[in-house]
Amino acid sequence: LLKSLGSKEAMIALDVMGGDHAPQAIVHGALLAAQQSIPITLFGPYDLITSLLEKLDAGWQRYPLHIAHADQVVHMDDDPVSAVKTKPGSSLVKAVSSVKQGICQAVVSAGSSGALMVASTLILGRQEGVGRAAIAGFLPTKKGKVLALDLGANTEVRPEHLYQFAHLGAAHVAAVSGIKRPRVALLANGHEDNKGSVLVKQAHLLLKESTLNFIGNAEPKHVLDHEMDVIVCDGFTGNVLLKTCEAATDMFSAWLAQGITKYSEKMSAENAQQMQKTARFLQASIDARLDYKQVGGALLLGVNGTVIVCHGSSDAQTMQYAITFAWRTITQGAIIQREIIETVQLS
Amino acid sequence: LLKSLGSKEAMIALDVMGGDHAPQAIVHGALLAAQQSIPITLFGPYDLITSLLEKLDAGWQRYPLHIAHADQVVHMDDDPVSAVKTKPGSSLVKAVSSVKQGICQAVVSAGSSGALMVASTLILGRQEGVGRAAIAGFLPTKKGKVLALDLGANTEVRPEHLYQFAHLGAAHVAAVSGIKRPRVALLANGHEDNKGSVLVKQAHLLLKESTLNFIGNAEPKHVLDHEMDVIVCDGFTGNVLLKTCEAATDMFSAWLAQGITKYSEKMSAENAQQMQKTARFLQASIDARLDYKQVGGALLLGVNGTVIVCHGSSDAQTMQYAITFAWRTITQGAIIQREIIETVQLS
Repeated sequence: LLKSLGSKEAMIALDVMGGDHAPQAIVHGALLAAQQSIPITLFGPYDLITSLLEKLDAGWQRYPLHIAHADQVVHMDDDPVSAVKTKPGSSLVKAVSSVKQGICQAVVSAGSSGALMVASTLILGRQEGVGRAAIAGFLPTKKGKVLALDLGANTEVRPEHLYQFAHLGAAHVAAVSGIKRPRVALLANGHEDNKGSVLVKQAHLLLKESTLNFIGNAEPKHVLDHEMDVIVCDGFTGNVLLKTCEAATDMFSAWLAQGITKYSEKMSAENAQQMQKTARFLQASIDARLDYKQVGGALLLGVNGTVIVCHGSSDAQTMQYAITFAWRTITQGAIIQREIIETVQLS
Repeated sequence: LLKSLGSKEAMIALDVMGGDHAPQAIVHGALLAAQQSIPITLFGPYDLITSLLEKLDAGWQRYPLHIAHADQVVHMDDDPVSAVKTKPGSSLVKAVSSVKQGICQAVVSAGSSGALMVASTLILGRQEGVGRAAIAGFLPTKKGKVLALDLGANTEVRPEHLYQFAHLGAAHVAAVSGIKRPRVALLANGHEDNKGSVLVKQAHLLLKESTLNFIGNAEPKHVLDHEMDVIVCDGFTGNVLLKTCEAATDMFSAWLAQGITKYSEKMSAENAQQMQKTARFLQASIDARLDYKQVGGALLLGVNGTVIVCHGSSDAQTMQYAITFAWRTITQGAIIQREIIETVQLS
């Protein structure tokens, strides 16, 4: 079932002009990824890109980097729909179009996520049976990763959209992980069947009747205990879930650092040095498990193509991770995403 | 403005039969709190309570513990409204009624939170101008605590309810903290004014026109960075926010422990011992800041009286904390809650 792309056939489309630190950080991230043999086409102003590459590495031409000139820019505060329609020459629109044309197999952008979603929906098209595309990302848990969706594409959804997200998520996890029947749960304010908002209660009934391996409602602790493979929610709640995980672990790291400083003060210089060494080890071992940054981006599921949505604040390393994530996705099974069409048949 | 109750005038009403570990853990928690001179009336079967107290401490009569017989029990799976109406002799209903009668000044229960809310609303009544009571709790942040509401009382709300929650939260923080104009924010999927669900966007407009110190929308990171004093959301989202904070910090603690074990393995026995000591210090310093357990309960705001809602899974220590929290609330300013009536005047 899994059909992989060889590296010779595949190419990543990168929107150089999207993101708070664009174009500098985006081009730098591309160079880092290309140094690991990932073929990338950079969409943006030709002269700007070449001059940035020259500055970063005079030998950049050794790496699989291609440039596709694009002179328009979609700005963060542009209206997504009109930006996509009135800026066909923008780096974002051209990068998405390259996937439609089969020139590239995945697009990565840290630009306006609204515009990226609109462009992906309009240009690539939604998969059959899918009413809304959703942003999906892997959350680190105690025992591995859980795919969570929607993380923010749709603040208002209907029960059937949650039902579709469940199918999209399960199909993606099945494709990239080899788990045949991923466990799917619905995020709620209690694990009991009767818990949840009206939306969740109605989606629960739809999912109960579905062919999916639906395990019911779940609270955040069940998610982080990895009791399911896919957790489904509306984009507003998913955004709060993701960002609370990030903020809470950030707070915990800050407390850990403060605790270590306080503890070190009581020690001899030698012991304090040892303590700092321990602390660095602990922090690194924890950071290694928190792969919000190491993944670098989230997937837009439900469109005909692989689209990676990066955070606007992405730096060069985050972009490298996002490009690597896109590459793994297309070479290790995301082609299967297209077969979701058959899976997502609404009742 | 702040009027405090002396300890001689005040009494806590405790629902002995509510909670997963009732009555044992509840009675034990009461004893621990009473040993710290907090006067408590225990509502439940007289003989059962006395026999539990005898077993725990034969000298329990030295402490300010009173028993009010109640032979009916509200169960977790009872329908809240019918349970409150058909079980007037239950420990939960009698405990709430004692606050209405002025015998007790606050009620604490780990029983069905739905039934506790219904009983509080029906018996104590909602404050004027308040359409829904909300559960409010203090979240630990990098720099102190933020009052978050609603944490789960209302999964479906209208914009005016969020507006009222903002007023209730601000008035409570002003009363217990001395902050004159608490900063109030609305939880959203982005800090920009145009972010949020339809509900959040409409509530944003109401709050912008209010007399409150409204600072706009906030993401979870802004909450944990303590950029406001009160964070407002619907009960579904608030429940996800609270439980994700708890679950993420629990996960982080588990990782910290695993990291320490792994690091210790590389060390000499002596160094490993030192490391374990360090680890215990770090964990304790972090736990001290995570006061989910140390507070023990959340406040039901919007009713005429102090009501503390505890988690069903509360153990004896959690109940002790909840009783202490109730005590502090009534002796340090929650009386002021009644004055919210004047503050919450809807436009």
